[in-house]
Amino acid sequence: MCGIFGMIGCENAAKLVYLGLYSLQHRGEESAGIVSYDGEKIIYHKSMGLVSETFNEENLNSLKGDTAIGHVRYSTTGLSHSKNIQPFFAKHKKGNIVIAHNGNLTNTVDLQNEMEDKGSIFQTTMDSETITHLIARASNNDFKNNIIEALSRLEGAYSLILMTDHLLVGARDPHGFRPLCLGELDGSYILASETCSLDLIDARYVRDIEPGEIVFIEKGKLESVKPFPKKKHSSCIFEYIYFSRPDSNIFGESVYITRKNLGKQLAKEYPVEADFVMPIPDSGNSAAVGYAQESGIPFEIGMIRNHYIGRTFIQPSQMVRDFRVKIKLNPIKDVLKGKRVIIVEDSIVRGTTSRSRVRTLRKSGVKEIHMRVSCPPIISPCYYGIDFPNKEELIANRHSIEWIKDFIGVDSLEYLSIDGMLNSMPFKKTEFCTACFNGEYPTKLPKAFSKDMLEKV
Amino acid sequence: MCGIFGMIGCENAAKLVYLGLYSLQHRGEESAGIVSYDGEKIIYHKSMGLVSETFNEENLNSLKGDTAIGHVRYSTTGLSHSKNIQPFFAKHKKGNIVIAHNGNLTNTVDLQNEMEDKGSIFQTTMDSETITHLIARASNNDFKNNIIEALSRLEGAYSLILMTDHLLVGARDPHGFRPLCLGELDGSYILASETCSLDLIDARYVRDIEPGEIVFIEKGKLESVKPFPKKKHSSCIFEYIYFSRPDSNIFGESVYITRKNLGKQLAKEYPVEADFVMPIPDSGNSAAVGYAQESGIPFEIGMIRNHYIGRTFIQPSQMVRDFRVKIKLNPIKDVLKGKRVIIVEDSIVRGTTSRSRVRTLRKSGVKEIHMRVSCPPIISPCYYGIDFPNKEELIANRHSIEWIKDFIGVDSLEYLSIDGMLNSMPFKKTEFCTACFNGEYPTKLPKAFSKDMLEKV
Amino acid sequence: MCGIFGMIGCENAAKLVYLGLYSLQHRGEESAGIVSYDGEKIIYHKSMGLVSETFNEENLNSLKGDTAIGHVRYSTTGLSHSKNIQPFFAKHKKGNIVIAHNGNLTNTVDLQNEMEDKGSIFQTTMDSETITHLIARASNNDFKNNIIEALSRLEGAYSLILMTDHLLVGARDPHGFRPLCLGELDGSYILASETCSLDLIDARYVRDIEPGEIVFIEKGKLESVKPFPKKKHSSCIFEYIYFSRPDSNIFGESVYITRKNLGKQLAKEYPVEADFVMPIPDSGNSAAVGYAQESGIPFEIGMIRNHYIGRTFIQPSQMVRDFRVKIKLNPIKDVLKGKRVIIVEDSIVRGTTSRSRVRTLRKSGVKEIHMRVSCPPIISPCYYGIDFPNKEELIANRHSIEWIKDFIGVDSLEYLSIDGMLNSMPFKKTEFCTACFNGEYPTKLPKAFSKDMLEKV
Amino acid sequence: MCGIFGMIGCENAAKLVYLGLYSLQHRGEESAGIVSYDGEKIIYHKSMGLVSETFNEENLNSLKGDTAIGHVRYSTTGLSHSKNIQPFFAKHKKGNIVIAHNGNLTNTVDLQNEMEDKGSIFQTTMDSETITHLIARASNNDFKNNIIEALSRLEGAYSLILMTDHLLVGARDPHGFRPLCLGELDGSYILASETCSLDLIDARYVRDIEPGEIVFIEKGKLESVKPFPKKKHSSCIFEYIYFSRPDSNIFGESVYITRKNLGKQLAKEYPVEADFVMPIPDSGNSAAVGYAQESGIPFEIGMIRNHYIGRTFIQPSQMVRDFRVKIKLNPIKDVLKGKRVIIVEDSIVRGTTSRSRVRTLRKSGVKEIHMRVSCPPIISPCYYGIDFPNKEELIANRHSIEWIKDFIGVDSLEYLSIDGMLNSMPFKKTEFCTACFNGEYPTKLPKAFSKDMLEKV
Repeated sequence: MCGIFGMIGCENAAKLVYLGLYSLQHRGEESAGIVSYDGEKIIYHKSMGLVSETFNEENLNSLKGDTAIGHVRYSTTGLSHSKNIQPFFAKHKKGNIVIAHNGNLTNTVDLQNEMEDKGSIFQTTMDSETITHLIARASNNDFKNNIIEALSRLEGAYSLILMTDHLLVGARDPHGFRPLCLGELDGSYILASETCSLDLIDARYVRDIEPGEIVFIEKGKLESVKPFPKKKHSSCIFEYIYFSRPDSNIFGESVYITRKNLGKQLAKEYPVEADFVMPIPDSGNSAAVGYAQESGIPFEIGMIRNHYIGRTFIQPSQMVRDFRVKIKLNPIKDVLKGKRVIIVEDSIVRGTTSRSRVRTLRKSGVKEIHMRVSCPPIISPCYYGIDFPNKEELIANRHSIEWIKDFIGVDSLEYLSIDGMLNSMPFKKTEFCTACFNGEYPTKLPKAFSKDMLEKV
Repeated sequence: MCGIFGMIGCENAAKLVYLGLYSLQHRGEESAGIVSYDGEKIIYHKSMGLVSETFNEENLNSLKGDTAIGHVRYSTTGLSHSKNIQPFFAKHKKGNIVIAHNGNLTNTVDLQNEMEDKGSIFQTTMDSETITHLIARASNNDFKNNIIEALSRLEGAYSLILMTDHLLVGARDPHGFRPLCLGELDGSYILASETCSLDLIDARYVRDIEPGEIVFIEKGKLESVKPFPKKKHSSCIFEYIYFSRPDSNIFGESVYITRKNLGKQLAKEYPVEADFVMPIPDSGNSAAVGYAQESGIPFEIGMIRNHYIGRTFIQPSQMVRDFRVKIKLNPIKDVLKGKRVIIVEDSIVRGTTSRSRVRTLRKSGVKEIHMRVSCPPIISPCYYGIDFPNKEELIANRHSIEWIKDFIGVDSLEYLSIDGMLNSMPFKKTEFCTACFNGEYPTKLPKAFSKDMLEKV
Repeated sequence: MCGIFGMIGCENAAKLVYLGLYSLQHRGEESAGIVSYDGEKIIYHKSMGLVSETFNEENLNSLKGDTAIGHVRYSTTGLSHSKNIQPFFAKHKKGNIVIAHNGNLTNTVDLQNEMEDKGSIFQTTMDSETITHLIARASNNDFKNNIIEALSRLEGAYSLILMTDHLLVGARDPHGFRPLCLGELDGSYILASETCSLDLIDARYVRDIEPGEIVFIEKGKLESVKPFPKKKHSSCIFEYIYFSRPDSNIFGESVYITRKNLGKQLAKEYPVEADFVMPIPDSGNSAAVGYAQESGIPFEIGMIRNHYIGRTFIQPSQMVRDFRVKIKLNPIKDVLKGKRVIIVEDSIVRGTTSRSRVRTLRKSGVKEIHMRVSCPPIISPCYYGIDFPNKEELIANRHSIEWIKDFIGVDSLEYLSIDGMLNSMPFKKTEFCTACFNGEYPTKLPKAFSKDMLEKV
Repeated sequence: MCGIFGMIGCENAAKLVYLGLYSLQHRGEESAGIVSYDGEKIIYHKSMGLVSETFNEENLNSLKGDTAIGHVRYSTTGLSHSKNIQPFFAKHKKGNIVIAHNGNLTNTVDLQNEMEDKGSIFQTTMDSETITHLIARASNNDFKNNIIEALSRLEGAYSLILMTDHLLVGARDPHGFRPLCLGELDGSYILASETCSLDLIDARYVRDIEPGEIVFIEKGKLESVKPFPKKKHSSCIFEYIYFSRPDSNIFGESVYITRKNLGKQLAKEYPVEADFVMPIPDSGNSAAVGYAQESGIPFEIGMIRNHYIGRTFIQPSQMVRDFRVKIKLNPIKDVLKGKRVIIVEDSIVRGTTSRSRVRTLRKSGVKEIHMRVSCPPIISPCYYGIDFPNKEELIANRHSIEWIKDFIGVDSLEYLSIDGMLNSMPFKKTEFCTACFNGEYPTKLPKAFSKDMLEKV
């Protein structure tokens, strides 16, 4: 998964892009990069690691210019190494181009083969390099038309920010899988994955970029086009369930309130008697509050999250069982002992983490554990950017809920229904991609992932 | 403030000490150190920085031996530089000694002057070096008696772990200012500041070390002595209010439940009509849950805490107002807009942070803000280890509650009463130090802090 | 300038490439890189910095495979940043290609423009990316013919090592500007810039790659072709004068002996009475020994070179005059005081360094300084890879020898004659490029250097 | 071994100390440290590593004050870890004290035992901590007298620089084992191990500190005392043979000229017919020039020293025989082939390095190798600071010259005679310590080295 942020028309744009990336860190912890344009040349800094590790006062000061775009990445396609850090940039016959991309294309292999036949060479496995080649090969004299021509070849999911000298471009694929919003600060335009990054820099939320829309921003003017045939909207519902930050609005609506509604619906569908409701902190917090409010059962904090996790190298699995869970979450024994508790999880992927957490809770002397999951069982992989594991590793793809209940070790386990989930959403149920829950993919699937050719050591 | 952890009789003791320090990181983020004894020599690794930054697989593997003690530090006395990282160690006529200390002595200057007159030299400004000198100068042939003689000279607050070759020693001052508990894992004894570190390594909580008690642990045997005249107990009440982790028990009782009781008492003392109760996350969480349960007003999450704060070097104060608060906490506008909210804070020190938070909340369009603080006004500094600022910087020392209310910018502001606080405690009110709230210090005050002589760059 | 090294058919080829680069470090201190092929994929490690800083046991162990090529670089074209570190690699329609290049092309801009018109994009400003594009666009079904077709388009200087899966390729341009030799170790072939790198790994020198020759090495077999029209040979004479290591043979002959011959010739052309001959260490050592042997004047050491120079950040120019020279070279006062000395320099570029050295020597109380330079005055820049400054900064381009003598502050100054230099060479005088001494360039000159588009910070 | 440098009365003294240490790097590559006094407090920076790695602009700027002392160390006593980095500092009853020490005491264990009996504790195994304790325990009211009293207790070798607030002190033991000279720059006094560090900063050499002399420098005034009974002078002859830099004067005389005289004497004692004389660069350079001048045989360069050795981690001993030698020195084959050569070595310790070098030379096809060593056989360890190995590892202690000749693999091997060595010295033969050559130690030997108690990992 990735987060993207771009800004034009603001002195030292890179500093605000840095802050924007900081607030999008949850969308990709593997690498970070910023590229600016100072009126004459492209300046960049990228590296593996967190935003706070990648940038410092010195390199930020050097990223001069009033236009800049940035990217945080957790690799889904493309191996995880330094060549693949975005933004990607190159020069071609008509100038420079810089791209930051969130989402996964589904026809990359076809496009690369086609262009290699015409003599192109590829240095990375990134979708963004493919898009750059398409723009360079487009046949128009006009840069905007070249972008339209290039994007018309793409299939799959993309929310894009492009920069070419004095022009900033934002685009979302016609399905609208990934979010992208437009903000404004003192007359300068901003493009960002989520609104939480507008909040941090005191920018005003203007509107979302629409599915199939391209915006060209230049000299303080924004031009919007919708050059592609309309397609069924397929916003990623998992952005609401887990991925986005609860203090963001995405697709125009509040993540926290949507998530709380999922919890309320869960309480309606699967009530149970208990002494209190508790979340798995922090991802289950919002839905747990909703469950407690709907059910009237007290909200309680039963586990404490450690804020210093950082990069624990040690895995003393031989010494301490369930260590990875325990280093993050510690149960409060005096609260749990002898109690019947409802635990709200946002989702279950492999089931192993939930199992560890429950085992840890059991040691506190809890009497009954009723787990409630604020989304349906995940049964199919995502080809549009969410980093689920292979189908075989998705526990709900291979096992019944009853089996999972026993595996995790709870007294009862219930998942929210697909209809319940869709009814909790802030807009029409037909406008979401729910492929991970029901296998109904809104596009053709990719033939194969591009084979990766190299490895940095 | 500091956290300490020691273990004896366990293969690779240092690895468990590392985990223990990991869970005590909140007690001191400035430096970390572990010292082990491999049967022949003392091995150590210490540095400035977090536990996760200080230790790696290689240096942990080298810290061999079945006895080890560790320390995390946030400097209160002693400048903040690498010489002052604990544990402290030295050799003297009868062997090696290693010390990890939590708390502040009040007679260090007198003791150092006395020993310098006899020819001692001091390399650091740490209390632990002073204690080591006292032990080296003690007049008995027996090491245990030397420790008793040395500790009998100390005034002020100390929870100590000492190591000398095959002996591990734990001690608390007769007032019992700081916590220290005893744990056990597979027959090995553990000494730790808080029980959360026992939980992480699956160790069993045995009991607290008592005020004025010294325990000597050797070859699997524990010997307890109480050689000092009894003094009035003065457990630090601020450990319950703010400092300790909510999932710990300290002084034998649950921090979370005590903190929730503070919130309940606050609701009784200062009720107010509102749409919901929300905490300042995460330090206000426990008391906010208590306030909500007692008042019947819904608990809600109104601000989201960013988990990637790390070390943000940038301070774009000119660009973004209240940046330091906003990078940590972001209000959820759609929840707050037009609402009357009760905000629960654990404490107010200078008032500037609260003011920033309130200003940020106001921008969300909140209608009314009623702040409730789960402790009384802080009016006096702490000489026993809590790092409050000078008296002049304590806002409640210089201003009325009405003035503070206006400064912070809330519609109402109420602090918990001293009696209400003491009545919420899990044991007798006479057993606490409340000097920071009422200026009644249980010991003589230090003449002056030892002037620091050096600075590492 | 650059150094290149490649090996095929040897287990853990990368480790020997590492050693090869180590001994070629003098050819480029700015960045280093190694790429290996493990039978399935390309593995690489590259970074700014010295070879010893770039590689460690861990990354070398990961560079698996029996084929590897490496590169050290001091940028001449292409800005100095991490994107431009060689070897360069990309995939194209028929597979992977990896290139390490020494020398400068003179028609890069034309070639890039031509290919950008056909839709190519460029990510770097390196000649090696240009060559890769040419190979990808070549029209043959056979990889070897594609290389021949691509290289036939190049003008200027290139000694190249290419790797494509199981094939290693070596090539020198028809003028033969830069050296490239062939070695052999236990049946495995090696390509290297200089023979000193063969010595380090106990490899046998086989022969030099000839101007205009391409060698294809595969499965232990070497195939040689010379597909290009013959051109006048133009070996870089400055490799003998300064650039190559004195313990290397280049173009088949000993650098040290050639350099000593320059010194002997200098003694014949410009004798002078003096107490002793001394070199500027270490670059003047060989010629000074030759001068002393020819003249019969004693060889002496008058300055000591500091071996710990490393990366001195400090430039206390305000404190210590001529610091940069003095940190490297310190005169021995008791040797110099009151003496008439002949100082042998290998070359003078800007004259400022020589001036500093002389000023430092003067303080030792030396009586007379007679400077002898073992090459003619440098009056023209190099377009084939030597990093001379702009023409305006070449002191001999703008000033007479008399003027330079006064500027440097010596009692006499003499340069070796062009004929004397050519007569000291180990082979025919018509086979050298002497453009930097007489402005006679053996090729067309580049229109302009490719404008650089980006900058890493 | 160690190098020391101190300065008083000069703005930003630390920057000049940094340069001084830079030029003394050859005296200790393991750690470096500088301590300054800014008029109010002691400021320090120390770390393992080279001077260029330890210091940067930022930390040097922070080392404010007009008094500073520095130290580079290669451990001889005291384990090699960060606690033992000098300068050492502590406060005692009358103020601060900072010490930098070169040399080894022989009665440290006795002194430490004595003071531990009186209650002292020791944190390191360094002689400098012992000296500090002695000063703190001295019984006078006057700081200068305390220093005299403390130094009067020391036995063995010491050249010391002490700093206490506004006073700088220099001292040499009565035997005068190690060098220490006095310099002056713009009215500020300097103390330094060797004169090469005066040269670098353009300071004037004033004179050497004499054996048994103490100088106190304060407010621009220097006071000299010689409070100790006279002892036989025993200047370390190995400083001339190998240890000091050839561009330094030590004990008042030129190292290079002395070393060249050793080479001349060697030529007189052991002439041999040969085609040329060559040094092992660079340590044999001076003596080889002397041998060539005396014998009339041409001086030649037969091996080239690689200047980029840095920290080669790799030891591909299985791959490349004699790698450690070859990475440093490469023979020039075309010079050596078929020739009879005289090789001048400065000294032979274990013999293994010489053996490797000879083996490498043999591969060049050299006809005869006649090795001449510019000092006598080393048969006894040094207790005064030179880091020779155990007696058992000294090849000349266990084997005849004939045996060593065969071991190393040369056609002839001759060592300079003890008388020849002493006659080549610039002052009286009775004033040198020659214990390593004849076992005649000028002091009592230490009982045992202080057992080290701790290890940093």
